[in-house]
Amino acid sequence: MFQWIKKVLIGRPLKNEAIHGEKYKVLWGLPILASDSISSVGYAGEEILIALVPVIGALSFMYLTYISLAIIALLVILTFSYSQTISAYTGGGGAYIVASDNLGHVAGVTAGTSLAIDYILTVAVSISSGIAQLTSAFHSLAPYHVLICIAVLLFIMIGNLRGIKESSRMFSIPTYLFIIGSLAMIIIGIVKIRLGVAHPVEPIVQMKANGAVSIFLILKAFSNGCTALTGVEAVSNAVPNFDKPAAKHAKKTLWLLSLFVLLIFGGISILANLYHIVPVEGKTVLNQIAFNVFGNNLMFYFYTATSILILVMAANTAYSDFPLLMSIMGKDGYVPRQFSMRGDRLSFSNGIIVLSAIAAILIIVFRGDVALLLPLYAIGAFSSFTLSQFGMVMRWRRIKGKWWRLKAFINGFGTLTTAVVVLIIAFEKFKAGAWIVIIITPVLLMMFMRIKKHYVALAKQLDIKESDLKGFSIEKSCYKNLVIVPLESINQSSLRALRFAKTISDKVIAFNISIDEEQANKIKGKYSMINTDIPLIVKYSPYRKVVSPLLKFIESTEYDYEKGDMITVILPQFTVKSWWQKMMHNNTSFFIRKELLKHKHIVVATMPLQLKNDKSVLKNTRSN
Amino acid sequence: MFQWIKKVLIGRPLKNEAIHGEKYKVLWGLPILASDSISSVGYAGEEILIALVPVIGALSFMYLTYISLAIIALLVILTFSYSQTISAYTGGGGAYIVASDNLGHVAGVTAGTSLAIDYILTVAVSISSGIAQLTSAFHSLAPYHVLICIAVLLFIMIGNLRGIKESSRMFSIPTYLFIIGSLAMIIIGIVKIRLGVAHPVEPIVQMKANGAVSIFLILKAFSNGCTALTGVEAVSNAVPNFDKPAAKHAKKTLWLLSLFVLLIFGGISILANLYHIVPVEGKTVLNQIAFNVFGNNLMFYFYTATSILILVMAANTAYSDFPLLMSIMGKDGYVPRQFSMRGDRLSFSNGIIVLSAIAAILIIVFRGDVALLLPLYAIGAFSSFTLSQFGMVMRWRRIKGKWWRLKAFINGFGTLTTAVVVLIIAFEKFKAGAWIVIIITPVLLMMFMRIKKHYVALAKQLDIKESDLKGFSIEKSCYKNLVIVPLESINQSSLRALRFAKTISDKVIAFNISIDEEQANKIKGKYSMINTDIPLIVKYSPYRKVVSPLLKFIESTEYDYEKGDMITVILPQFTVKSWWQKMMHNNTSFFIRKELLKHKHIVVATMPLQLKNDKSVLKNTRSN
Repeated sequence: MFQWIKKVLIGRPLKNEAIHGEKYKVLWGLPILASDSISSVGYAGEEILIALVPVIGALSFMYLTYISLAIIALLVILTFSYSQTISAYTGGGGAYIVASDNLGHVAGVTAGTSLAIDYILTVAVSISSGIAQLTSAFHSLAPYHVLICIAVLLFIMIGNLRGIKESSRMFSIPTYLFIIGSLAMIIIGIVKIRLGVAHPVEPIVQMKANGAVSIFLILKAFSNGCTALTGVEAVSNAVPNFDKPAAKHAKKTLWLLSLFVLLIFGGISILANLYHIVPVEGKTVLNQIAFNVFGNNLMFYFYTATSILILVMAANTAYSDFPLLMSIMGKDGYVPRQFSMRGDRLSFSNGIIVLSAIAAILIIVFRGDVALLLPLYAIGAFSSFTLSQFGMVMRWRRIKGKWWRLKAFINGFGTLTTAVVVLIIAFEKFKAGAWIVIIITPVLLMMFMRIKKHYVALAKQLDIKESDLKGFSIEKSCYKNLVIVPLESINQSSLRALRFAKTISDKVIAFNISIDEEQANKIKGKYSMINTDIPLIVKYSPYRKVVSPLLKFIESTEYDYEKGDMITVILPQFTVKSWWQKMMHNNTSFFIRKELLKHKHIVVATMPLQLKNDKSVLKNTRSN
Repeated sequence: MFQWIKKVLIGRPLKNEAIHGEKYKVLWGLPILASDSISSVGYAGEEILIALVPVIGALSFMYLTYISLAIIALLVILTFSYSQTISAYTGGGGAYIVASDNLGHVAGVTAGTSLAIDYILTVAVSISSGIAQLTSAFHSLAPYHVLICIAVLLFIMIGNLRGIKESSRMFSIPTYLFIIGSLAMIIIGIVKIRLGVAHPVEPIVQMKANGAVSIFLILKAFSNGCTALTGVEAVSNAVPNFDKPAAKHAKKTLWLLSLFVLLIFGGISILANLYHIVPVEGKTVLNQIAFNVFGNNLMFYFYTATSILILVMAANTAYSDFPLLMSIMGKDGYVPRQFSMRGDRLSFSNGIIVLSAIAAILIIVFRGDVALLLPLYAIGAFSSFTLSQFGMVMRWRRIKGKWWRLKAFINGFGTLTTAVVVLIIAFEKFKAGAWIVIIITPVLLMMFMRIKKHYVALAKQLDIKESDLKGFSIEKSCYKNLVIVPLESINQSSLRALRFAKTISDKVIAFNISIDEEQANKIKGKYSMINTDIPLIVKYSPYRKVVSPLLKFIESTEYDYEKGDMITVILPQFTVKSWWQKMMHNNTSFFIRKELLKHKHIVVATMPLQLKNDKSVLKNTRSN
């Protein structure tokens, strides 16, 4: 039943060899990795204006241009930097790998932690904001906001569990539609103004200046606009998802992505400027521009629909990157190794499921409210940018090479800028929620370091040294094996256990716990009917415990156990089919096994007894 | 840590022999078994008036007297009947035993089911109503109503887990205080009226008659008043909890209980009549009577406090009976046998915990609202009364004896009356909630019958027939044992597993699953370094599965397995201390064991490897 549902939702398991068919080239790679970036581009201009308009009024449009140019400069720096990263690190992992390799493990894991947090928030924020736009268009859906968010999340999760290729097909079309729509809108918008067909609108709100231009205001507007750049790192993290030659495909994708970001972000800033659009409650800047450019027609509705879809699809970028990052960190031992195992469809299913689960919790806890989630966002992305850029600087200093000073300068400038952005975001949004990220990051970092420590200690203990094997032979180092068969009563199941015990050792005892004289005599009487030389030990348990009298017996002088011997305890277990029968049986043996396995010299052998179907047993009896 | 908390809350484990010290005589038995009964007595008069007053106004007091007399007659019949039941069935179980013995198993389990439901509802209803009175006195507590209910439930649960004796000491004082207070109030109240010190009050509501006396009205009032009788069966169910001679102590307790019920119920009806008390919103009849009799003084507040306490204590009666009933039904195989096992303090702890859990769910689901819970109540109690009485009739017919016709007549009359009450309650309260009980009872009944069937089928399969043992010898019927050691890599843990494998069999193979050529070669290379003649089989798993390739190999002709042979699979398991390390390890081996144990010819031997503390391992390495 469960298997069947799984097969329908996820698809048939894929063979290991199918991995190459699961990879993408530029055409399908671009939309999957670009949706995060490009969706945030649509809203970056708005974020800048939100900071400026209430303070400096009509002056805002001039500063919008300056700030946009600064952000585009930063974009170019980041693109150069990440392009170099892709060449240098074809294994993917982006900031995590670059920082680990050049700045040491602590910096690397910090970058990885920041990225992981950012991916989780990307999922929560982009689904919430996409659905918020949907529910504000269709008010009757508003009460089901959280429910719809979770449904969409599940849909994207299943799409990703189905595998990279299928998810890229499923989720790519809306991204391309949005890119084409945006570019068309920018061209039409500029042409219309130049031809005098369209005119700037009277700003709906009064464009009064209430304050002066200050460095803080500019920084705030700049940090708001930097949202446009989150997601640029996606490509460098996902290099292993590209078909061969992976680095070449990845770089082409990165440059295309940057080009689209530049065009759309720049274009929308220009349009906002030309049409004098300011943010108003309930209407996004993008929405107002589209309305002014296209008019109230099908084209407008179509573009609005794609702008909602791409917001939701932005979550998909995180689904491409988070599981890969976790798998790389898992191989290095900073997160449980289970993250490195590929699922039925060759996707890193554990990462996908964990990402979905945490994002779902965030959506539920924050009731899918974008305003509450947004302050947590972006700080992780820019922290990892800073570390990755700084890592590249150190790399140039180390390996030198042609133009290394220029390259180091570019990356150094990027380091500085992104570091400043981190500080601005942390400062501006501290109270609103950034503090949560600032607290969680070091906690996670310590957790990951602790896991690594555990794996190192584990490896040390499991490691076989060559000296161990000198003169070693398994055949010559067999254990002395003593077997104990705990009996509750004498039945078919205990007979089987005794037969098996005798099979694997000559030193067998049967062991019974009784809580009164009567019970003890009953079992002794029944046991004497079996023809065996296995001794039966009956112990009285005053507190009705099972395991402790057994352990006490083993440690007592009565029992002929020497250090280095192995003791095998045979526990019968009923195999039943229905869940309620499972609940009725084997609970005691579960606890016994758990307790016994705490002792290194005790092996617990579980011997299944398959029970027949109740009906068939009772039928046979009747017919006999 | 958990063990320590348990010890503090529940107390040190008690020895089996302590069971006799845990039993009670009349002095402590009466309050524990009477609190349900006596608490409902305080409110039965009110229930009768609630039915009558809105319809027939001032005439109500006359009919209150008639109906009270009828209920007292029914009480006498039930007391006679249950007294005879105690003599006949000293093992306890009340209605369940009587019905099983005389009417067959289906009737018995039906009675048991009804009783079980009633006990659960007793807990939920009495705690909710007690706390409702508390929160109506202290309004600031009202928002925490459900929370306080659950806290009180936990308190009573812990008291009962501590053992019968301790719980009887803890919970008895309030019952005695309430009995003494009630009797004092009745005497003082009657004397005051007779002496002319007190006078009937002007009824606060208009005593207008809006309808006529009808048989339906009388029946409704009668069925409402029958609440006074729920809990009378408690004594006969709890006979095994009495010290020896149990039957004698139990009978004495029953008669005393009935006497108190009669006095308090009758007395309060008389007082209601004398003082012309009618039920008003927010003030109970009992409360009004106490106010009129005592006046606004300390005595009044003291009595009100005990009347709240006894309501809560009524839950304790169910804690005495439900676990015992479940333990008896568990011995008979109708509920899981775990209910028959005594816990650390010799109480039937599983029954206590299940009772608490279900009652807690009911309180939470119904938000502790008495009005919603009450209609579910009483129907179970009276169903079991009917079955138990009818069982006694059949018993008299069967065993005859002195005066048997009279005895059968008394029980027959009781059967008829209680059956009518069941029908009235089911009819009157069907929509309000009785339908839930009417649906759940047969569902539970079928469930219990199904469990019995499973135990019967299990016993048939486990049973050893004498013919099985003829010429049988364990030594001569050993298995041929083949051992498989699945290896993920070659390490200290796998070496131990191989050594153990060689210890228990000569036919050992090492088995590895690889997902690519590289991995396969690596493990083969490492394996060749070990000096052993155990063959290594490496299988390629295209779908990254572990268990299915192993099973496929076992079933293939490549493997030398014959029917009747036993295969032992050795799975190493890491023993780690902290919870997060537990989550990281052994998940795979858990699933492998689960899958393998579905095959009856496969024994899974779990071999623990105790990992050392991470810190100590890393320290040692450093100092080396």
